[in-house]
Amino acid sequence: MKHTASVIGYHTTRYGELWNKSLYELLAEAYSGAIADAHTEHGSVDAIFLGNMLGGVLDGSLLLEAHLAEGIRSHIPMYRVEAACASGGLAFQMATEYLSAHPHHTVVVVGGEKMTDVSGGEISRALATAAAPKEQRVGLTFPGVYALIAQSYLHAYGYDERHLASISVKNHAHGALNERAHFQRAITIDEVLESQYVAYPLKVLDSSPISDGASAVVLTGNATRIRTAQAAVSVLSSETATDTISLAQRERIDTLQATVCAAEKAFQTAGISRKEIDVMEVHDCFSIAEILALEDLGFWKKGEGGARALQMETARDAGNNLIVNTSGGLKAAGHPVGGTGIKQIGEIYLQLTGRAGKRQVARHAKGLAHNVGGSGGVAVVTLLGIS
Amino acid sequence: MKHTASVIGYHTTRYGELWNKSLYELLAEAYSGAIADAHTEHGSVDAIFLGNMLGGVLDGSLLLEAHLAEGIRSHIPMYRVEAACASGGLAFQMATEYLSAHPHHTVVVVGGEKMTDVSGGEISRALATAAAPKEQRVGLTFPGVYALIAQSYLHAYGYDERHLASISVKNHAHGALNERAHFQRAITIDEVLESQYVAYPLKVLDSSPISDGASAVVLTGNATRIRTAQAAVSVLSSETATDTISLAQRERIDTLQATVCAAEKAFQTAGISRKEIDVMEVHDCFSIAEILALEDLGFWKKGEGGARALQMETARDAGNNLIVNTSGGLKAAGHPVGGTGIKQIGEIYLQLTGRAGKRQVARHAKGLAHNVGGSGGVAVVTLLGIS
Repeated sequence: MKHTASVIGYHTTRYGELWNKSLYELLAEAYSGAIADAHTEHGSVDAIFLGNMLGGVLDGSLLLEAHLAEGIRSHIPMYRVEAACASGGLAFQMATEYLSAHPHHTVVVVGGEKMTDVSGGEISRALATAAAPKEQRVGLTFPGVYALIAQSYLHAYGYDERHLASISVKNHAHGALNERAHFQRAITIDEVLESQYVAYPLKVLDSSPISDGASAVVLTGNATRIRTAQAAVSVLSSETATDTISLAQRERIDTLQATVCAAEKAFQTAGISRKEIDVMEVHDCFSIAEILALEDLGFWKKGEGGARALQMETARDAGNNLIVNTSGGLKAAGHPVGGTGIKQIGEIYLQLTGRAGKRQVARHAKGLAHNVGGSGGVAVVTLLGIS
Repeated sequence: MKHTASVIGYHTTRYGELWNKSLYELLAEAYSGAIADAHTEHGSVDAIFLGNMLGGVLDGSLLLEAHLAEGIRSHIPMYRVEAACASGGLAFQMATEYLSAHPHHTVVVVGGEKMTDVSGGEISRALATAAAPKEQRVGLTFPGVYALIAQSYLHAYGYDERHLASISVKNHAHGALNERAHFQRAITIDEVLESQYVAYPLKVLDSSPISDGASAVVLTGNATRIRTAQAAVSVLSSETATDTISLAQRERIDTLQATVCAAEKAFQTAGISRKEIDVMEVHDCFSIAEILALEDLGFWKKGEGGARALQMETARDAGNNLIVNTSGGLKAAGHPVGGTGIKQIGEIYLQLTGRAGKRQVARHAKGLAHNVGGSGGVAVVTLLGIS
């Protein structure tokens, strides 16, 4: 039986090209900020969960937990979780499992990445380590994998590149309101269409950037801490599922089965319906990914997504009930991979507690965060609601 | 409240230079072997915990869970844990936390490493990623870190290199009885003393080798599975603690405070005394490390270790109650880092269930496994007992 935990604090660093800060400094900044936001002292943290993908590959930093322990000066349990771009979300999901075993504990989930200090070629190779070996060997990069998915999807349902571009336009409009976002400016459909191809049909402006940054949340099962927090949000459920990493092994490549499974479990566990969700952060590593996410999470029917994306139904100013990626998503807010899944949960936390500032949405009782690793090898879906 | 889980199956590949097998093949072999040993079918596995340190750095393999999912064809949760040389032990510890939330589930904990395909320089740099950045920058390698610890210890208590060498001699004698060990031959004190220095006072034969290999255990809270297993052992407790990674930040360098803390918690949780332990696997990455382990785990007083090591008190044939590293330890059985912590638990499982073959010990009611990450940045202590 899983017990209920609540998010009681959140902090994120600015996402972007942060050349003057190390990976450890970013993690420490997010950690301390979240503790302060939760009105908690460091001494009451019982365990730390750490999401990071590339510290070992790019930065010569494995055993990051011990690097954190160095600054924190305590002997509490620390767990580093790696699940490629879902490292942050999975660290959070695992923390919810841990709190079932320790229902009165308070834990910090922190994740981040330092990606802009190396060349583009190096980062492409590093990110490709999360792809299937066979796909790596034939030279498929991550944009290449998602480009194949996009081609299949556009062809199957008769959509074109404008349908993809709409996602980026919406997310940049949202990101323009987020002072921690990597990109804080609006873009147009034409700008997306005129940007350079990365892997046909995906262009630079269909793609999330390479970012530095870190984010952290404080999660607790302690009733006193929940009551005395300035703002608390319950974790209604947090579930994860896996899938083959090779596209070739899948029944269809325009469905992320890990997302389908994780979402089904998450809604079942929480006992709520999709209609109750007001605000979501979904994994838009490329524009096509947000369209698939809305379908695979069960909000749109398979094949509808292109048309509904073009209508910008999920924009803040569309006047509809479901608003997606108010942070700017991975596209505009940035994508330091270990941080992303935690920032998504943090953004929902801010929205549900009415603390999202200029980008606050009007209806905010329940929210969803969706984080994907690789091209769908792992997915994590977390449902949150006002306590 | 933590519930009780039991180990019901174990398999390890041979440890050694396994040039004809990939990391994924080793993990899959250990996984399948453990499932078979537990008389379980793949379909009843509810989650997988994966310990691996260097897949991303050496092998271009991150998101290893999805590589496993590819072979296994299921959508179950999978978690990769990285804690340097404690990756396997911490994956197991985390699995016990998970089973508290899902007390009827059955999970597999699998870990391994593929280390012999790269040059010695490359592996030294890769392993050094788990050291403190300042220590890395001044050129301290892992043998260097433990050499400083050894020098301090020998000087403080008036011991010499023979005291260290005794550990290797004992563990090689044990390893000679283990058909899966990297090295299966006995060595003498003189051979250790005559081997080349790696970092004074540590020599080649004070040091665990670079190995390939993988190990897996099946862990369940399901009463029916425990009853129908051919052999089951209860997890009495499994605890982890962390510490600063820099030696310079520690009060004393001849004590691994993470081991002290994890052991205290583990004995307290299990409610048993150290006198009840019959057999232990401890983290002897270097000979000095086993001496410190026996002290820091609370079996020997600080400073006694050198003399007691020279007496080979913990050898199988010494006639004493406490026998240490029957597998051969990291020194003789080998040290594929992500596999080690799981092999330790598997060895205790074999001993407690009377299935350890030629190296079976006579008294085998309770055992302990002790896994360390970095130079003591993380430690995991697991206590096991006959169900």
